[in-house]
Amino acid sequence: MSNQPELLLLNGPNLNLLGSREPSIYGALTLPEIEARATAYAAARGVLLRATQSNHEGALVDAIHAARTWARGIILNAGAYTHTSIALRDAISGVGLPTVEVHLSNIHAREPFRHHSYMAAVCIGQICGFGWRGYLLAIEALLGHLGLLSDA
Amino acid sequence: MSNQPELLLLNGPNLNLLGSREPSIYGALTLPEIEARATAYAAARGVLLRATQSNHEGALVDAIHAARTWARGIILNAGAYTHTSIALRDAISGVGLPTVEVHLSNIHAREPFRHHSYMAAVCIGQICGFGWRGYLLAIEALLGHLGLLSDA
Amino acid sequence: MSNQPELLLLNGPNLNLLGSREPSIYGALTLPEIEARATAYAAARGVLLRATQSNHEGALVDAIHAARTWARGIILNAGAYTHTSIALRDAISGVGLPTVEVHLSNIHAREPFRHHSYMAAVCIGQICGFGWRGYLLAIEALLGHLGLLSDA
Amino acid sequence: MSNQPELLLLNGPNLNLLGSREPSIYGALTLPEIEARATAYAAARGVLLRATQSNHEGALVDAIHAARTWARGIILNAGAYTHTSIALRDAISGVGLPTVEVHLSNIHAREPFRHHSYMAAVCIGQICGFGWRGYLLAIEALLGHLGLLSDA
Amino acid sequence: MSNQPELLLLNGPNLNLLGSREPSIYGALTLPEIEARATAYAAARGVLLRATQSNHEGALVDAIHAARTWARGIILNAGAYTHTSIALRDAISGVGLPTVEVHLSNIHAREPFRHHSYMAAVCIGQICGFGWRGYLLAIEALLGHLGLLSDA
Amino acid sequence: MSNQPELLLLNGPNLNLLGSREPSIYGALTLPEIEARATAYAAARGVLLRATQSNHEGALVDAIHAARTWARGIILNAGAYTHTSIALRDAISGVGLPTVEVHLSNIHAREPFRHHSYMAAVCIGQICGFGWRGYLLAIEALLGHLGLLSDA
Amino acid sequence: MSNQPELLLLNGPNLNLLGSREPSIYGALTLPEIEARATAYAAARGVLLRATQSNHEGALVDAIHAARTWARGIILNAGAYTHTSIALRDAISGVGLPTVEVHLSNIHAREPFRHHSYMAAVCIGQICGFGWRGYLLAIEALLGHLGLLSDA
Amino acid sequence: MSNQPELLLLNGPNLNLLGSREPSIYGALTLPEIEARATAYAAARGVLLRATQSNHEGALVDAIHAARTWARGIILNAGAYTHTSIALRDAISGVGLPTVEVHLSNIHAREPFRHHSYMAAVCIGQICGFGWRGYLLAIEALLGHLGLLSDA
Amino acid sequence: MSNQPELLLLNGPNLNLLGSREPSIYGALTLPEIEARATAYAAARGVLLRATQSNHEGALVDAIHAARTWARGIILNAGAYTHTSIALRDAISGVGLPTVEVHLSNIHAREPFRHHSYMAAVCIGQICGFGWRGYLLAIEALLGHLGLLSDA
Amino acid sequence: MSNQPELLLLNGPNLNLLGSREPSIYGALTLPEIEARATAYAAARGVLLRATQSNHEGALVDAIHAARTWARGIILNAGAYTHTSIALRDAISGVGLPTVEVHLSNIHAREPFRHHSYMAAVCIGQICGFGWRGYLLAIEALLGHLGLLSDA
Amino acid sequence: MSNQPELLLLNGPNLNLLGSREPSIYGALTLPEIEARATAYAAARGVLLRATQSNHEGALVDAIHAARTWARGIILNAGAYTHTSIALRDAISGVGLPTVEVHLSNIHAREPFRHHSYMAAVCIGQICGFGWRGYLLAIEALLGHLGLLSDA
Amino acid sequence: MSNQPELLLLNGPNLNLLGSREPSIYGALTLPEIEARATAYAAARGVLLRATQSNHEGALVDAIHAARTWARGIILNAGAYTHTSIALRDAISGVGLPTVEVHLSNIHAREPFRHHSYMAAVCIGQICGFGWRGYLLAIEALLGHLGLLSDA
Repeated sequence: MSNQPELLLLNGPNLNLLGSREPSIYGALTLPEIEARATAYAAARGVLLRATQSNHEGALVDAIHAARTWARGIILNAGAYTHTSIALRDAISGVGLPTVEVHLSNIHAREPFRHHSYMAAVCIGQICGFGWRGYLLAIEALLGHLGLLSDA
Repeated sequence: MSNQPELLLLNGPNLNLLGSREPSIYGALTLPEIEARATAYAAARGVLLRATQSNHEGALVDAIHAARTWARGIILNAGAYTHTSIALRDAISGVGLPTVEVHLSNIHAREPFRHHSYMAAVCIGQICGFGWRGYLLAIEALLGHLGLLSDA
Repeated sequence: MSNQPELLLLNGPNLNLLGSREPSIYGALTLPEIEARATAYAAARGVLLRATQSNHEGALVDAIHAARTWARGIILNAGAYTHTSIALRDAISGVGLPTVEVHLSNIHAREPFRHHSYMAAVCIGQICGFGWRGYLLAIEALLGHLGLLSDA
Repeated sequence: MSNQPELLLLNGPNLNLLGSREPSIYGALTLPEIEARATAYAAARGVLLRATQSNHEGALVDAIHAARTWARGIILNAGAYTHTSIALRDAISGVGLPTVEVHLSNIHAREPFRHHSYMAAVCIGQICGFGWRGYLLAIEALLGHLGLLSDA
Repeated sequence: MSNQPELLLLNGPNLNLLGSREPSIYGALTLPEIEARATAYAAARGVLLRATQSNHEGALVDAIHAARTWARGIILNAGAYTHTSIALRDAISGVGLPTVEVHLSNIHAREPFRHHSYMAAVCIGQICGFGWRGYLLAIEALLGHLGLLSDA
Repeated sequence: MSNQPELLLLNGPNLNLLGSREPSIYGALTLPEIEARATAYAAARGVLLRATQSNHEGALVDAIHAARTWARGIILNAGAYTHTSIALRDAISGVGLPTVEVHLSNIHAREPFRHHSYMAAVCIGQICGFGWRGYLLAIEALLGHLGLLSDA
Repeated sequence: MSNQPELLLLNGPNLNLLGSREPSIYGALTLPEIEARATAYAAARGVLLRATQSNHEGALVDAIHAARTWARGIILNAGAYTHTSIALRDAISGVGLPTVEVHLSNIHAREPFRHHSYMAAVCIGQICGFGWRGYLLAIEALLGHLGLLSDA
Repeated sequence: MSNQPELLLLNGPNLNLLGSREPSIYGALTLPEIEARATAYAAARGVLLRATQSNHEGALVDAIHAARTWARGIILNAGAYTHTSIALRDAISGVGLPTVEVHLSNIHAREPFRHHSYMAAVCIGQICGFGWRGYLLAIEALLGHLGLLSDA
Repeated sequence: MSNQPELLLLNGPNLNLLGSREPSIYGALTLPEIEARATAYAAARGVLLRATQSNHEGALVDAIHAARTWARGIILNAGAYTHTSIALRDAISGVGLPTVEVHLSNIHAREPFRHHSYMAAVCIGQICGFGWRGYLLAIEALLGHLGLLSDA
Repeated sequence: MSNQPELLLLNGPNLNLLGSREPSIYGALTLPEIEARATAYAAARGVLLRATQSNHEGALVDAIHAARTWARGIILNAGAYTHTSIALRDAISGVGLPTVEVHLSNIHAREPFRHHSYMAAVCIGQICGFGWRGYLLAIEALLGHLGLLSDA
Repeated sequence: MSNQPELLLLNGPNLNLLGSREPSIYGALTLPEIEARATAYAAARGVLLRATQSNHEGALVDAIHAARTWARGIILNAGAYTHTSIALRDAISGVGLPTVEVHLSNIHAREPFRHHSYMAAVCIGQICGFGWRGYLLAIEALLGHLGLLSDA
Repeated sequence: MSNQPELLLLNGPNLNLLGSREPSIYGALTLPEIEARATAYAAARGVLLRATQSNHEGALVDAIHAARTWARGIILNAGAYTHTSIALRDAISGVGLPTVEVHLSNIHAREPFRHHSYMAAVCIGQICGFGWRGYLLAIEALLGHLGLLSDA
């Protein structure tokens, strides 16, 4: 483990479609572009952000497990698995890493089945509705929680 | 992309068991036999049908994503994921390909948890209860929707 | 009873408005036009289709009862009674004729009260969302069920 | 169609019992008496009111369909069908005539199963609880909606 | 009105199928045979039983209304309308005739949607599960209620 | 076991209060008076009726178990346990004796928690709302079921 | 108290925004303009209408209490408190003044949480969906109830 | 209105207790301290933040109404009214100002009645679980939405 | 703070109507009369009771906040806000004063929406159904809890 | 019956464990100790309190029945049967004795299944959350109801 | 208390019917035979098993209470009371003895009302679906929990 | 296939974390340690246990499918998928191998969403709450079911 704090940025199903998928809801930036902005934002705060994405629930669980050995915290946009995956929830509580939940859209303003998050009960907090900027806010929030903000 | 229209025939979990799994409910034909009949049926209508099956939710999402580059539409039997996968639903709406939902059995006549389909709201329509013939009906329906039937 | 197999095509309330009623949902063809297409389609397969429509729940029950004496099967679009009529359901199970349920629109993608069908549990299967073509698919499906397709 | 605007006053099941049926709830006037008052009230405003009543759901649907050819709007007391008939709701949305929903009693103050109206979502508005006067209020409301009130 | 007490025996949808419809549930007697037995049973107790049946909800409402002028009470098997018709319920409370609810099968032992009766709240009582004999029991019960049993 | 058929008449909690408890709902006869009438009624049909009552759920279960050795059937008014006792239900299905469910009042017209009967699914049928006469009707119904009515 | 009958016109939260707030739903007139029309309408019928509005639930309760000493009845548009305020409901039943419930929009055609009114059970009746004209209809309805219409 | 953009920071019931109320849930800073930090944070970004707090639902509605004339957006922590106040929701949609919803605690990880927000459907997005820092994140989010971030 | 223990007696909406509002439910004493009895009762036990009432939810919250500085405990009849106000609940848990919940009527024997109390989870206990005497019982209960009863 | 008024103090299942069972919830006094305190408290008010306890639902019903002949009222802590026993509820309404419901803990602050009381609808009122003192409060409340308090 | 560890084997309602009651569900062994096998199994592990059965909820509660003085743990098949008895649940938590829940059939695969166990929340664990062997497994599980297995 | 009976021990998501994940709930043994104990336990009974684990729902489905060719039965701890995966349920019923459901913790004593098991309806039985010993109990139960216990 390096001396530089490291965070996992984990994106779930269909977020690889960003930029092409329903841009009126999700915005026009692609996922690599967003990941680049987030990585730069973190780097400017002395933090290394490692980003990964998968459409596979099991792969997301695996990634969270692996993060135990290197990450200080997780920024998680679980996409549709937010609403259906108890496995992901158990992975988060199992590894015990502080996790911030992010959603591009305001899930509480969409279909009722998107209002409930299995993640919420095991996360520090939730940020939703602010598009790609939500990831930056989540980094800020997580660093604040970890006491890694200079103003802390 | 060839000049011949191409369609994705996508089957979900446990459909690889067809022929051996509860034949009184699902029929005696194996999945390769059904895929062969469907492919021939499509070919007779000048359409190339590409069939794939997976028990992995993520792999089904991946297959739908990949179809953006080559398919004109999708025939989807999501099996059990029909009732539990918002990720698949988002994949369909994300790629924007016209999709016909098929089920071998009449899901509305079975256990209550099989009555609801997360797919339905993002599909053209639903065909269920007609066994392997349902795939042929779905091809017909999808071609009709695409204006590819000679009688259209 | 003639030697030619006969089927009942039964349409329920408000389907007589077809062509004028909310065409964005239901299409521009009138009911007689659709019935003509369906009858021709059946005739091409050696089957006599007799079509009737009523806005009266009781009249639809009566028609199903009467079909016992002449029909081999029923194609039923019960319209709004799909969701409210146990009497129609009991009529179908009472006469014991194989029945295919059809809906012009994808009822599972509309208001929640249109998602449940009292008919489903006593029908072979359901076809919805394909407009007037759904009737042709239903004929095909019913003939397949009855073993009256040449390829059966 | 005459030059004089015409409206349909349509009453549903059991309203023919008015005057004899539970007068503490529904009042002492008979239906013909109420229809006469409403007709006179409309006539005083230059409008021809045609009244009909039926206990048959299908007959009420038929009447709404028929009104397409002559009426400018509908005043509907669907009685018990208010709470059970999707067919009537679809008839109203199908013909596209502006409709005012009336109830003699305050349905929201009675048994819970009378609180929900399938009509409401396709009507301009609802007037309930004012006995026979509710019909006059409904005429006023409908004329206001149609721009047929002198003070409009 | 004759001096002899008269009762209405009213049967609803699909009961005309009796004898042919699912005899394992409903028994092997036809409706005319049952009506004959019930009429004889009533006659032996000095009461004239008039029987009618309809598959039309509105016709059943009409029949109840008409009974106001001649009947002392009603024996009602509303069939499937038991569970869906508020109009029938209002007809019974509207005419104010004592009514006994009968069902051939034990509705409380069947599908959940058959457990609730809109009729129950406005009837004296309910008899279900005893097949055609239930009608005789209902006559006995209604005569008891009316004080027309010799042992009363 | 005597040659004369024997039946168990079993009454549950609070029915010992009959005659004093809320007579407007339950009638003015005491339980011994009702039992005497029922016994006489049965005797006139060649059947021995043995009556017992308890406020104890366990004692009612015991009584049903004991009836296996001597009774041909059971007439059961389980009182409040109707709505809460799965133990009684299991006792009935456990001994396999045909059972008729009786209630003095029309339970379906009272508080919602009295609408559901755990007994119903394991009984032949239900008779409710006819006061003490309901027991006589139940005897008649049970004898009919057992083929012990002369007219059977 | 003057000899002239007086009524309270009470408007709840956000109705002061009328004319600027979502005019497609609520219309273009401001609240003072609507109050002026209603006051004139009442005056033409010999009745003094006093109008007040508040965004404070407690202030609305206070106003209803105060009306005991001077008003003959209340016309109430409780706005959003319609759906959430038992305090307002209790105020109405507490003062015992006849109250007519008004809503500018058809609340039964909007979000489900707007379908239920805590006011309804303690009001004479409800008028909704007719915009500012609804207030005039409510005055008419209330005067009719009070026997203050010349045609009464 | 000054040239400097102005935002309303609006806090609801019990937030004046901050610092003393359940610090394990809500943190140890007082509301004035938090407001000072937020104001400074906004000032550093060229924005004037005006903070107000009230325990009165109506006063919060009034404050939102007043903001129409001077504010570019709202940061709202509605406290307990989040879950109960449709009036506040209507105020937000009525004034049409972009609003960010903030909560100190992660409401989705607390009692079920705190999971639902009436505000959410009319807000840009939601930030919860990050204590007083959530207000800074909300300023950032709102400025991003308004295009007032230098990096926008 | 005086040496004499002080308690807050806080009454919510519509309780100022006592004596005139539905006396069959709430009794004939006015609120000042009840407050006087309660104050005397407390004084006889060496305790100063300060009574206040408001129809405003926010004012009740304010009063609870203010009590932090002087009161040893609270006797709260929140009236209708009992069932709707999470803000009041949070105020009680926020100030941490022991609170006894009182209701004049037996709320559990009234409409279902009065059965649930948002206050209950943060109060010591609940006393309901005993009219004005309930306040005296609540004083006794609170003193017992505080160890201020001589017999403690 | 003696001239001295007598009351039944009836305790239900598991209350015989008091003192040993979960003292943090239920307190450290044993049931005989509590009964002694309550009896002394009643005696000081000229009333004879007779206490009994049973773990048997039927025995509690029997005790209530027996109280008809000697008691003026009942103080009932039905323990767990509070939430499950309709038989006990019917016993209370059957004997018609005024009954006060007591619970040691605040049942409304515990698991949801303890919030509902079948007893409440047939009792004068409820006292819960005050431990053994609740019995004394209940005596006071019952005597007040019976007009047996000197200050009445 | 002997030096040999003792366990209570407690069976609830209808389990005395074992061997005769629905053997396809519950097996062909009688309860004494099962108890003998379980006792022998325990004895082979140096543990004395005392078995008792009752159909009375109260008697089961009494038995659990009594076990406090002699037993180290309980093996409980509460039969139907599993789903209805909060009294039994409170008895288990009241005595604080470790308890293993057993069911002969797989309750989670039967009617929905058998899926919920009031016992579960206060038991170590649950074993269901394995017939009489389930008792042996429960002994093993309880001994493991108590540290009485040689391999522990 | 060897002559020795073989069983599949299949563990689902997050069970690879055992030993590190929330040991107060799940115990301190690692999964390999538990698998070793279970394998030894099975071997001592002449049975070969093959253990596998995956966090991927699809991989678990694949493993069940593959077991058709070699296993006599399955011991399944599906972890979080227990509550969400219909695909796993269908896999079990599809291959038709007898399956025992195991959970380390007592799922019925945890959050409500862990109470329901999609597996239960297609498994022989369920064992939960006994930690790693549950696997040994499951082996015993499965061998008993298969008739492979020497004492069978």
